[in-house]
Amino acid sequence: MARNIRLILQYDGSRYHGWQKHDGVCNTIQGRIEQVLERMGGKPVELVGSGRTDAGVHARAQTANFYYEGEETPARIKDYLNRYLPEDIGVLSAEEVPMRFHSRFGAIRKTYEYRVYVGAEKPVFDRKYIWTPDKLSGFDVGNMRAAAVYLVGEHDFLAFCGNRNFKKSSVRRIERAEVTSDGTILHFRFTGSGFLQNMVRILTGTLLEVGAGLRTPESVAEALAKKDRSLAGFMAPAKGLTLISVEYE
Amino acid sequence: MARNIRLILQYDGSRYHGWQKHDGVCNTIQGRIEQVLERMGGKPVELVGSGRTDAGVHARAQTANFYYEGEETPARIKDYLNRYLPEDIGVLSAEEVPMRFHSRFGAIRKTYEYRVYVGAEKPVFDRKYIWTPDKLSGFDVGNMRAAAVYLVGEHDFLAFCGNRNFKKSSVRRIERAEVTSDGTILHFRFTGSGFLQNMVRILTGTLLEVGAGLRTPESVAEALAKKDRSLAGFMAPAKGLTLISVEYE
Repeated sequence: MARNIRLILQYDGSRYHGWQKHDGVCNTIQGRIEQVLERMGGKPVELVGSGRTDAGVHARAQTANFYYEGEETPARIKDYLNRYLPEDIGVLSAEEVPMRFHSRFGAIRKTYEYRVYVGAEKPVFDRKYIWTPDKLSGFDVGNMRAAAVYLVGEHDFLAFCGNRNFKKSSVRRIERAEVTSDGTILHFRFTGSGFLQNMVRILTGTLLEVGAGLRTPESVAEALAKKDRSLAGFMAPAKGLTLISVEYE
Repeated sequence: MARNIRLILQYDGSRYHGWQKHDGVCNTIQGRIEQVLERMGGKPVELVGSGRTDAGVHARAQTANFYYEGEETPARIKDYLNRYLPEDIGVLSAEEVPMRFHSRFGAIRKTYEYRVYVGAEKPVFDRKYIWTPDKLSGFDVGNMRAAAVYLVGEHDFLAFCGNRNFKKSSVRRIERAEVTSDGTILHFRFTGSGFLQNMVRILTGTLLEVGAGLRTPESVAEALAKKDRSLAGFMAPAKGLTLISVEYE
């Protein structure tokens, strides 16, 4: 009898073509994990993630689940995966959950963090997990926070969607949008019900433009209201983005 | 007229064949920096490092110097290097120093740190800067500290030298040898007048064997006294080792 197994995963997305498996592209996070699960259980497995992460995006705690017909305990599954997955993908936990649990449909809240490097020295050791802007500088944290306030609440985020042909509802609820700085790294942290394709990277790019004085905080409210992608800012590169957590009921 | 320029450097050694340039191996830290300096100044440059680091070893603050006949200011040299060096090599500072300054002969003290991962989870994000033992475990920090005490002082460290044909004096003074643990990472930190080839990695491997109960703390004193490599422990892998600092008069 099949069991439903939930995995909490970490990955360094630098080498991968994103989460999602698709024809002709083998090197995705989902694809690599499914390969190992198939090898363990002897039959093909479909791993359902809480959502796709773009190529180059990292995760501290992605959630995924799969139906498993083999005999291994969750503890053994975790050990097996950690042994046979490459060193840039790790399983934090594996556990049996009710059959109705679904990583994507059940997710009620996600948190992403984008890290922008603004330190004086070349960031040799953290370089894969931050982005260093070379054209923008002198970011005003107060103005970025003022702009972030407009994002909180339920809005149609179509202006911040990277998919220009998006047909479904682009209404999402952002619960928190925080900008903090430790003098070396700017942290942009967004918690919400869900995020559209590339949305966190476009939100971050837009706030960075506010911080650099290229646009006003109010222009963010205008982009939201007009639902016009051309009124929002640039899309920050993938490497600075990390999926921090996914929450369920 | 030539000036003597001192650089403080950081690097992630993962991709490199060590510090030292040698025939037929281009991809060394020294080689990459000399290439960029030659391109900047239009003539070959010889960069003198405080010492070689092995292939795969990292540095938080390596010191090096070179004689420079061009016009650029030290600030410009730093910017030029940071722009044209790959992202895993960074220059923290460049400054003009007296002509007699020599990175290797002038160094009076170096500090190295070896990091051993003993946490429960697969270390996805720090994986390049730590080593995870898969055969040894259950390290007793008290016993490792007891063994480290024998290392402090002036000794002939021939038993801990990776070069079996070493002909020069293998006497070195270790000022501090510390073992600390935060529950996830064991830190081995050594400060001394200088270190023989592979010495920090063999010291760390030997202390790990003590920690795992494979040998007594006293056996370290015995290896020192007998100057016999076969009485010391294994050589820990390069990736866990970082040169932390080099000090001068």
